[in-house]
Amino acid sequence: MITGKNYIGNQLSAKGTTTHKTINPQLNEENPTPFFQATLEEVDQAVELADKAFKTYRKVSGAKRAAFLNAIADEILALDNELIRMYVSESGLPEGRAMGERGRTVGQLRAFADLISSEDWRNRTIDEAIPNREPLPKSDIRKTSIPLGPVVVFAASNFPLAFSTAGGDTASALASGCPVIVKSHAMHSGTGELVASAIIKAAEKTGMPNGVFSNITGSGRVVGTALVKHPKVKAVGFTGSIAGGRALYNLAAQREEPIPVFAEMGSINPVVIMPNVLAKKAEETASTYAGSITLGTGQFCTNPGLILTIDGENTTTFISDLAQKTIDIAPQCMLHPNIKEGYESNGEIVASQKGVEVVKQIEGEIGENYAASKICAVSGEDFLANPKMHTEVFGPFSLVVKAKDQQELIQVIDSLEGQLTGTVLAEKEDFEDLHNVVDSLQAKVGRIIFNGVPTGVEVCESMTHGGPYPASTDSRFTAVGVGSIKRWVRPFSYQDWPFELLPEELKS
Amino acid sequence: MITGKNYIGNQLSAKGTTTHKTINPQLNEENPTPFFQATLEEVDQAVELADKAFKTYRKVSGAKRAAFLNAIADEILALDNELIRMYVSESGLPEGRAMGERGRTVGQLRAFADLISSEDWRNRTIDEAIPNREPLPKSDIRKTSIPLGPVVVFAASNFPLAFSTAGGDTASALASGCPVIVKSHAMHSGTGELVASAIIKAAEKTGMPNGVFSNITGSGRVVGTALVKHPKVKAVGFTGSIAGGRALYNLAAQREEPIPVFAEMGSINPVVIMPNVLAKKAEETASTYAGSITLGTGQFCTNPGLILTIDGENTTTFISDLAQKTIDIAPQCMLHPNIKEGYESNGEIVASQKGVEVVKQIEGEIGENYAASKICAVSGEDFLANPKMHTEVFGPFSLVVKAKDQQELIQVIDSLEGQLTGTVLAEKEDFEDLHNVVDSLQAKVGRIIFNGVPTGVEVCESMTHGGPYPASTDSRFTAVGVGSIKRWVRPFSYQDWPFELLPEELKS
Repeated sequence: MITGKNYIGNQLSAKGTTTHKTINPQLNEENPTPFFQATLEEVDQAVELADKAFKTYRKVSGAKRAAFLNAIADEILALDNELIRMYVSESGLPEGRAMGERGRTVGQLRAFADLISSEDWRNRTIDEAIPNREPLPKSDIRKTSIPLGPVVVFAASNFPLAFSTAGGDTASALASGCPVIVKSHAMHSGTGELVASAIIKAAEKTGMPNGVFSNITGSGRVVGTALVKHPKVKAVGFTGSIAGGRALYNLAAQREEPIPVFAEMGSINPVVIMPNVLAKKAEETASTYAGSITLGTGQFCTNPGLILTIDGENTTTFISDLAQKTIDIAPQCMLHPNIKEGYESNGEIVASQKGVEVVKQIEGEIGENYAASKICAVSGEDFLANPKMHTEVFGPFSLVVKAKDQQELIQVIDSLEGQLTGTVLAEKEDFEDLHNVVDSLQAKVGRIIFNGVPTGVEVCESMTHGGPYPASTDSRFTAVGVGSIKRWVRPFSYQDWPFELLPEELKS
Repeated sequence: MITGKNYIGNQLSAKGTTTHKTINPQLNEENPTPFFQATLEEVDQAVELADKAFKTYRKVSGAKRAAFLNAIADEILALDNELIRMYVSESGLPEGRAMGERGRTVGQLRAFADLISSEDWRNRTIDEAIPNREPLPKSDIRKTSIPLGPVVVFAASNFPLAFSTAGGDTASALASGCPVIVKSHAMHSGTGELVASAIIKAAEKTGMPNGVFSNITGSGRVVGTALVKHPKVKAVGFTGSIAGGRALYNLAAQREEPIPVFAEMGSINPVVIMPNVLAKKAEETASTYAGSITLGTGQFCTNPGLILTIDGENTTTFISDLAQKTIDIAPQCMLHPNIKEGYESNGEIVASQKGVEVVKQIEGEIGENYAASKICAVSGEDFLANPKMHTEVFGPFSLVVKAKDQQELIQVIDSLEGQLTGTVLAEKEDFEDLHNVVDSLQAKVGRIIFNGVPTGVEVCESMTHGGPYPASTDSRFTAVGVGSIKRWVRPFSYQDWPFELLPEELKS
């Protein structure tokens, strides 16, 4: 049952009068429920409750926090078709995607529950005392990791479940012992409220302190700004645009007490195709990439937006083949009219630059919020002359660069900003030319993929989802995988501490 | 042989005309050598060289980087008495301290050499492929850590060796594979140049690329600002004042590409003395703390500047005893006339606040740059009413707070900003009252010490030297111990990467 209200801890609350509605992009009409934007008083209440909850939550055992996370997963599954229907109605994404993403969300929660069932994640170390060391005795020093405090999570538009209310940021922060206040995404407030209700139910069932979780609605910047500036908030997680993430980073850096912001932002995910691939399997590559470019209507942060080739006898055919195969895939609905608008205007920015050729794009009538796939091409020289071509076109778009030789290809890589991923497609015969390409790529990205596609971010310990700015605001952390818990903790040392007063994990 | 020049990579360089001299605080006169402030052109050259060096240095094997670090240690020792004499002449610190600090510096370099002799420090993980997983196959994903790029290190005034030119920041950054540009401290430019010459010699002997290290002189803000704003600088390390660290943090956060700044800054290091300690061993405690307060003329970031007691029958005697024992210790020379001036003016700020009593201070003639130790006392109520009493008085000073009961004592802790350390002195009989005190303290500090003193920061794996702001700008890292290498690296993942092209550490 959707109420349109905020969760301030366990309580539904709607003290404000400003409301907004979500949009069904398939029908291009508003969904019925009005959602109440939180007032500044409600924001303050949520943070104060979180701060109070932190005093007890940070001492709740790993086993109990794990039970909480597993209960959230159970309650999400219990929402069953109500959640799936809501997701579809607010995102335009198909039911299969909704179910897949729900599986990923539940899987993440359970992975963090597993992680914290033992205390190994805390990077514990023990240096034992050496009382008779000369010239000074050595103390007994033991280190563990402790949670930072209340964390604000900004839900992402493109993953209404897996990077949203109970997504990776929330799961990792709750796992670490930090209370979470979610700033719900205004494009899927209904999905957000349903998931929030599941988290609240799980918190109550497993005896978590009131305030361990709140869900705050706001469609503009007011609520988000107030959350990030609140002195009792200690860290921020965000997934979205460069402009949005940077604005939050700036707010946090300007506080009297600056706080860490992990923002996972823009990326055009360069893909380098080495010459022997085009000689040997151009068609297969074009098919695979047409699929990757259009997957999820191209609305993935790892979408391959930039394809780098060396201009040769097979390049033109490959580009035309890739473009044809891309537009052959039936157009799909985008998340929201605003996303569609951004897709078109950014695509136009790139396409209108000097030297850019629109190889092919879908023409004719398509659904109102549907995306017309588009493949552009440009020479290496023109690309190097114009950084506007680095613009991320969020949707089923890719720009193919034809470098005149490997040296220019490397210059193109060197000219890029930080990226989440880099991909190399190569045959054995290309290996000896590969080192310089890989060296340049490594300096720019957080993950490199060989003979695959960048889309599809596996949730596992070895995943890095993050990269040099502006892929993320702090490349030293990942947003996906159990390692993402490190964003919310700090090392803490006990020196000569009485054994009986040490936390359990350091009594070894 | 001191030249007064900068090291731009392996080359001595003095293109500027602005010079400064260091001061011998014991003699209160200038040392002879003029030091040439780097020009902006020299700053740029140093960074460009570092960026170029990074391309090869990041691929130098751990064994070779370890040899480099060990060679630095050897070359520092080879400077022998020339270094010790220079250190003493620029710091006013005694020869024994110089030798002890040299030992610590050399020990740190060797500890990082040991660390990187194996690749375990990289937090490597391997997720093997599951080709037949349903619905989608799982890729082979392997994660390691890679260096960020050129790091700027600001040398600290209070440790001319161990937190300076070849101190912990430089050692950890070079260990990680990052080139280092040191902004030498203007108060010990001679010591800095000698150590820089040792690093350059070591780099040449072990075949490191030119630019792996530079040493830049500057007495104002111009050079430091230019370094932090340079687009090819990727991280900053700093030890010093809150004002200085925050200024660098702000510069870095305002860059087009923000970069991480790890600044270890101010701390007054609260010490909680529980009632049974004053009942049972007040005199012993007073002696120990008189020693800790005056150690190194109080010029340590872990100096106990705030002592928290519960006012009772033994408190007044303890305070007066502590003050007497403190002033009984012979006054010592401070690092620099500016430090002395800051000690006096900040001490006066605290002493002049409402309710503050100067218990005792050294009266009469002492040496020009010598510090007159001072112990003040104030009620919990007055302390809580006035945040000016949180001012760090860098030197042999401590403010004793007399809380009326344990509740007020906890309020005092809760009112504090972030700190490097918190110390608890307690007897068994105090243990049951301790939980709330420790909970409050934990929220504020990076390390807690039991029945000891905060001064003395062991270089070991379990050390945390850092804490909530303003103790440091990012509490998620430590500045001391081998864990400090994590500040300069980022996770990096290889997906389905050909075995023969993987870095050695991931071929397992």
